[in-house]
Amino acid sequence: MTTMDLAPLRPLAERLFDEVRARSFDGVGVTRASYGEGETAAADFLREVALEEGLSVGTDRAANLLIGLPGAAPGPEIWCGSHLDSVPQGGNFDGLAGIVAGVLCLAVRRRAGHTSGPPLRVVGFRGEESAWFGKAYMGSGALFGKLMPEDLALPQRNTGETLAQCMQSVGADVDAIRAHEPLFNKHDVRAYLELHIEQGPVMVARELPLGVVSGIRGNVRHNRISCIGEAGHSGAVPRWLRHDAMFAVADLIMRLDEHWRALLERGIDLVVTTGVVSTDASEHSISRIPGLVSLSFEARSKSIDTLEGFYELMRTECKAIGRDRGVRFEFDRRMLSEPATMDAKLCDILARNCAAHQVPHEVIASGAGHDASLFANAGIPSGILFIRNRNGSHNPAETMDIGDFMQGVQVLSDTVEQLA
Amino acid sequence: MTTMDLAPLRPLAERLFDEVRARSFDGVGVTRASYGEGETAAADFLREVALEEGLSVGTDRAANLLIGLPGAAPGPEIWCGSHLDSVPQGGNFDGLAGIVAGVLCLAVRRRAGHTSGPPLRVVGFRGEESAWFGKAYMGSGALFGKLMPEDLALPQRNTGETLAQCMQSVGADVDAIRAHEPLFNKHDVRAYLELHIEQGPVMVARELPLGVVSGIRGNVRHNRISCIGEAGHSGAVPRWLRHDAMFAVADLIMRLDEHWRALLERGIDLVVTTGVVSTDASEHSISRIPGLVSLSFEARSKSIDTLEGFYELMRTECKAIGRDRGVRFEFDRRMLSEPATMDAKLCDILARNCAAHQVPHEVIASGAGHDASLFANAGIPSGILFIRNRNGSHNPAETMDIGDFMQGVQVLSDTVEQLA
Repeated sequence: MTTMDLAPLRPLAERLFDEVRARSFDGVGVTRASYGEGETAAADFLREVALEEGLSVGTDRAANLLIGLPGAAPGPEIWCGSHLDSVPQGGNFDGLAGIVAGVLCLAVRRRAGHTSGPPLRVVGFRGEESAWFGKAYMGSGALFGKLMPEDLALPQRNTGETLAQCMQSVGADVDAIRAHEPLFNKHDVRAYLELHIEQGPVMVARELPLGVVSGIRGNVRHNRISCIGEAGHSGAVPRWLRHDAMFAVADLIMRLDEHWRALLERGIDLVVTTGVVSTDASEHSISRIPGLVSLSFEARSKSIDTLEGFYELMRTECKAIGRDRGVRFEFDRRMLSEPATMDAKLCDILARNCAAHQVPHEVIASGAGHDASLFANAGIPSGILFIRNRNGSHNPAETMDIGDFMQGVQVLSDTVEQLA
Repeated sequence: MTTMDLAPLRPLAERLFDEVRARSFDGVGVTRASYGEGETAAADFLREVALEEGLSVGTDRAANLLIGLPGAAPGPEIWCGSHLDSVPQGGNFDGLAGIVAGVLCLAVRRRAGHTSGPPLRVVGFRGEESAWFGKAYMGSGALFGKLMPEDLALPQRNTGETLAQCMQSVGADVDAIRAHEPLFNKHDVRAYLELHIEQGPVMVARELPLGVVSGIRGNVRHNRISCIGEAGHSGAVPRWLRHDAMFAVADLIMRLDEHWRALLERGIDLVVTTGVVSTDASEHSISRIPGLVSLSFEARSKSIDTLEGFYELMRTECKAIGRDRGVRFEFDRRMLSEPATMDAKLCDILARNCAAHQVPHEVIASGAGHDASLFANAGIPSGILFIRNRNGSHNPAETMDIGDFMQGVQVLSDTVEQLA
């Protein structure tokens, strides 16, 4: 087995993380909006450094960043990728770590003068985070021809520009995407590998620097459920005549909370979140019974049956609350991301390479979604390697140890070598 | 008993309502911001018409509008007032009806050539609605020297300008207000009368055109309670490690709802509202566990003991939820408006005058607060006459029948006459 020693590239890794952070710092965390400024700044800097390292750089027709070894032979490739974007005021390592890892795997080969070797391509996806358009996997989804017209019409949360407009502005071929054309030949990809920070607290609790991911939770979502009650004067309408949309939404959340608790007690995998909830800012006031409240809904599970079952439960509770409280609920488009299973053979290789370096590791499930799920569900053997990370993710406090990261990159590089 | 016939002034009433509405229409309802544009437009138009009618017009040192009969003798006056402002996208009659009623009482006397008669003064208060600065009775409060430095520092909900700046911009004597100087001699006011639409559904349900108000509910409020949990990735943090601020707030609202129901069953007067609730727009997203949620809190009751008791219950539940869910609650300044009792003698006169015109009426309590409560609690005999109103208040659909209104103005005018 050939092994490239990645340790000397640690300064390059540090430089990449520091500089991309500086270019997308928002005063609190990093903000790299999907198809927006910070994301493009990250892509531009990675391109610059890749060129310095003598690598070849381009983009695909969905404006995702592609980096490779110059002069690589055509034919099936091993893809190694992750995403460029972040949530608003997010952390620096979510997504970026996987791209930096890929760049290091290429750079170590180029510095060693290899012009042949494993046919490795690094992909920096745009538009993975759902925070900006209420839709995840936009960059990888476009690649697979899976974006729908409704997706392309989604407005950006701050500017209101549509996804189509924003994709076009960074050079994506929106006509092809709208036509559902797959933008690549999936038979040209032998395997998809993704290094990513763990976004939950499990690996820190178990003292595991690395984790081999067995599968990815799917999710079912609504960006916006509207609860419509009746506005009124807060002092003058007695309880029995009220149709308070906020009390109704609180009731819904507590009913979901009860069901969730009961399902967990039966050993079912599930998390439930209402990340965006608000009375209507155009008319709310301290002395007004809220007549309109909007909320987002998300359930995640490794089981598609659990997702569908919990979703039906939610709809049923909305009907019941409608009857009880004289309100009604309106739903925007339901979005479903199916759970995905990682390739067993790739998992074995990743685990073996962890063991070869005496790195403590375990096989764990991913609560968060990743671009890898699209590859896996398209039948491309896929694997994810998790790096331990403190303080969770989607917040500025996420903390990855660079030593853990370099161990992960080493395992990734070894795995690429063995697939070659 | 002298009775002025108010019926011929119905066209003037209609003109005043229509024109003030037109000058403050926002496309949905009326918006007359406290110390802002719509409020000033209303004051300016009322001044214009009062001058046309040969009345005298001025302002007090808190920039409230004053209208009287020219040449009235000095000495104790009967005040008749209500407020100029509205909530955002509010209704046209809330507040305005009481001022128009007063102007009609003056105009009928002036048109009849009376230069003496009852020493009546109409006051159009600015800044009654809490929707703009999170504080009610600012105009009447200033008059009584009751605004605190914290009140004057409150920011306007849209512009962020302080109450002091906004009061100054319309000509109030902010230095005197800051010094807590009473801006009038309360011994110069023999009685305070307020005509106001009912803001609840009771009179419509009971088919009562007029209502004599026995007392006003007080309230206890926080403009902003912050629930601080821990943000995190919605897919990756299991339930037992979550500190979801939104679930905690929903829990709080449902606990308050339970206590409220239990107290009502014991015959206790109470309404509870959380009019403004929101996850933190600067960081919330569908895929992020909310780390920060803010809510407003308001309880209203005719009993100060109920207010204090329910407030303590709320604080206790916040502590319990803090322990249960690993969150904490932070509170801005507590604001208390005490319940007020209307003068029994004035109530009798108002009721007698309703009866004299064969108008169905009842003595009812006011769920909403009114400037009259400050007069009553300062020991000035005060009375409120309610006009039937459909569709509640603090919304654009409020509907007062002009016939009901003219009956109310007649009763008001008769009452003024009898107090003279």
